[in-house]
Amino acid sequence: MPALPVRILGTGKALPATAVSAADMDRRLGLAPGTVAKQSGVLTRYFADGETTSGMGAEAARAALKAAGIEASELDAIVGVCGGQEQAIPCTAALVQKALGLSTSGIPSFDINSTCLSFVTGLDVVSHMIAAGRYERVLLVASEIASVGLDWSDRESATIMGDGAAAVVIGRARDGEGSRILGARMETFSEGSDLTRLRAGGTRYHPRQATDLASYVAEYGLFEMDGKAVFKYTAQQLPGFVERFFEQVGSSMAEVDMVLPHQASPTAMWLVQRRLGIAVEKFMVIAPEFGNTIAASIPMALHEAITRGKLKRGDRGMLLGTSAGFSMGALLFEY
Amino acid sequence: MPALPVRILGTGKALPATAVSAADMDRRLGLAPGTVAKQSGVLTRYFADGETTSGMGAEAARAALKAAGIEASELDAIVGVCGGQEQAIPCTAALVQKALGLSTSGIPSFDINSTCLSFVTGLDVVSHMIAAGRYERVLLVASEIASVGLDWSDRESATIMGDGAAAVVIGRARDGEGSRILGARMETFSEGSDLTRLRAGGTRYHPRQATDLASYVAEYGLFEMDGKAVFKYTAQQLPGFVERFFEQVGSSMAEVDMVLPHQASPTAMWLVQRRLGIAVEKFMVIAPEFGNTIAASIPMALHEAITRGKLKRGDRGMLLGTSAGFSMGALLFEY
Repeated sequence: MPALPVRILGTGKALPATAVSAADMDRRLGLAPGTVAKQSGVLTRYFADGETTSGMGAEAARAALKAAGIEASELDAIVGVCGGQEQAIPCTAALVQKALGLSTSGIPSFDINSTCLSFVTGLDVVSHMIAAGRYERVLLVASEIASVGLDWSDRESATIMGDGAAAVVIGRARDGEGSRILGARMETFSEGSDLTRLRAGGTRYHPRQATDLASYVAEYGLFEMDGKAVFKYTAQQLPGFVERFFEQVGSSMAEVDMVLPHQASPTAMWLVQRRLGIAVEKFMVIAPEFGNTIAASIPMALHEAITRGKLKRGDRGMLLGTSAGFSMGALLFEY
Repeated sequence: MPALPVRILGTGKALPATAVSAADMDRRLGLAPGTVAKQSGVLTRYFADGETTSGMGAEAARAALKAAGIEASELDAIVGVCGGQEQAIPCTAALVQKALGLSTSGIPSFDINSTCLSFVTGLDVVSHMIAAGRYERVLLVASEIASVGLDWSDRESATIMGDGAAAVVIGRARDGEGSRILGARMETFSEGSDLTRLRAGGTRYHPRQATDLASYVAEYGLFEMDGKAVFKYTAQQLPGFVERFFEQVGSSMAEVDMVLPHQASPTAMWLVQRRLGIAVEKFMVIAPEFGNTIAASIPMALHEAITRGKLKRGDRGMLLGTSAGFSMGALLFEY
């Protein structure tokens, strides 16, 4: 497959106002001082307190539009790439459109969802529309409020997650700009669909069928993660996936300047880095600063890599992650 | 934009076992015999009673694969195009993959959501991937259990909706087959985002924040539709949208052999048909038989048009609908 003439025009992020330190988490969970920092590796995460998915998404989008130097009204589409939607109906992208003051613009707005990989899938999918001329400039928005569904009695998942948003404006690369998408791959193994899940929020476990609110929330309303099993499954599957990815796109890890990975958790990430033999300086880790922000995690890593000067125009970047499903995804691009 | 070499290879549908007649609905809602048939125009709808979103989706998918003459294992991607997901995490496509017995296949599985227009958006988006050679054969699955969130005290919405699933297998058209997608358009006006909504199911109105189950369900957990306002807004916006669509794709209603519309409600549909000046025999109406099955509605109309001989190879079909958002979408293809 030929490369796609698609360029990342601008990125932005937004965080809730409330920063929660590892020490705050120790107190919240009744743990000895230092426990959360040591066990989770996440030193700060931000928790929404009144912020909304669409509001944070719009804030990140405004920053991305400013970085891209284009007006919101110049967008041809708004694509929500959140792992968790704001409400069941309508799609989150429509609510982001509204929060951006574009409610009479007519700009098409829809969501693409593969949980933590939603941004990678969205970029992969939408790039084909840009390459074909269907759309010229598209906003991808990932905004997450993980905290609303965290199980505080499950220390492992509660201490690694964070809230936040990231947005990326992409457009057609002009001749000579050099930017392009070299290829993408996704694999889903639903034998792992129960390893990470949140059962409420859809048709299967509707609150109307419940008899008691507290037991409904406890049983179905919270994020469930079998951390050990997820890690074991990832360790088994990811190396083969990465090999198939590089074979497909005709490249290798040696040709990658910066890996922008899903910020699953610092511990899991460093194990992946070693397992895949990625040089430490080529592996963008922001999980200690922000936690795992679900689908916002990869575009936030991309944003931070760009703003901190770790990914420069012409560099080859690689998005890489796993998600509930169980899915693995990767995308190689020249920034 | 050039046409895309994409062919509908096969379609299928699945319904819950329980058919509910208009007379049944009269009894259920305590209305005089004949009221539901007369006011809603929906004579039969099917309500799930144990069926799941992914299970019905897989059943429709098996039928579509059989019609296409390909094995499930030959699919390159499974795209969930449901308006309502099965659970918050993971995406519904992964659960459909599992229900199809493909849990170790690795076939990439993700969702695309624009509520009732999800199939149209999904077909538009994914066709660009097929045209570019990223995927060869893709399964689009729309499966809906509307009944779980219906407000039985709101006669208007409760009597027009139904449950069901439809699936479509698409692939690259071979030279000489004639099949192609001529163009698609979508517009979103989020000033109408409150006209049709279901506020629970996401980050905004989580059950954990509630104090009472019954009031939580009543206030946030049910489908809300301001039917009159939706119809007024649609009547204002749709004619201009359809004009812009035909201008964009370089065609006209006179060149369309069959319109496959969203089955919003029989009453609303016939008003749209008259307002747009579509010949009755070119307007596929199945709402009286199945109700409004959200995103399954358009692919189910497509399936019925094909199986009833109303859309033949070489014919020009047009998908057309509105959705919560508020969005409008259309896609023109040669079958």
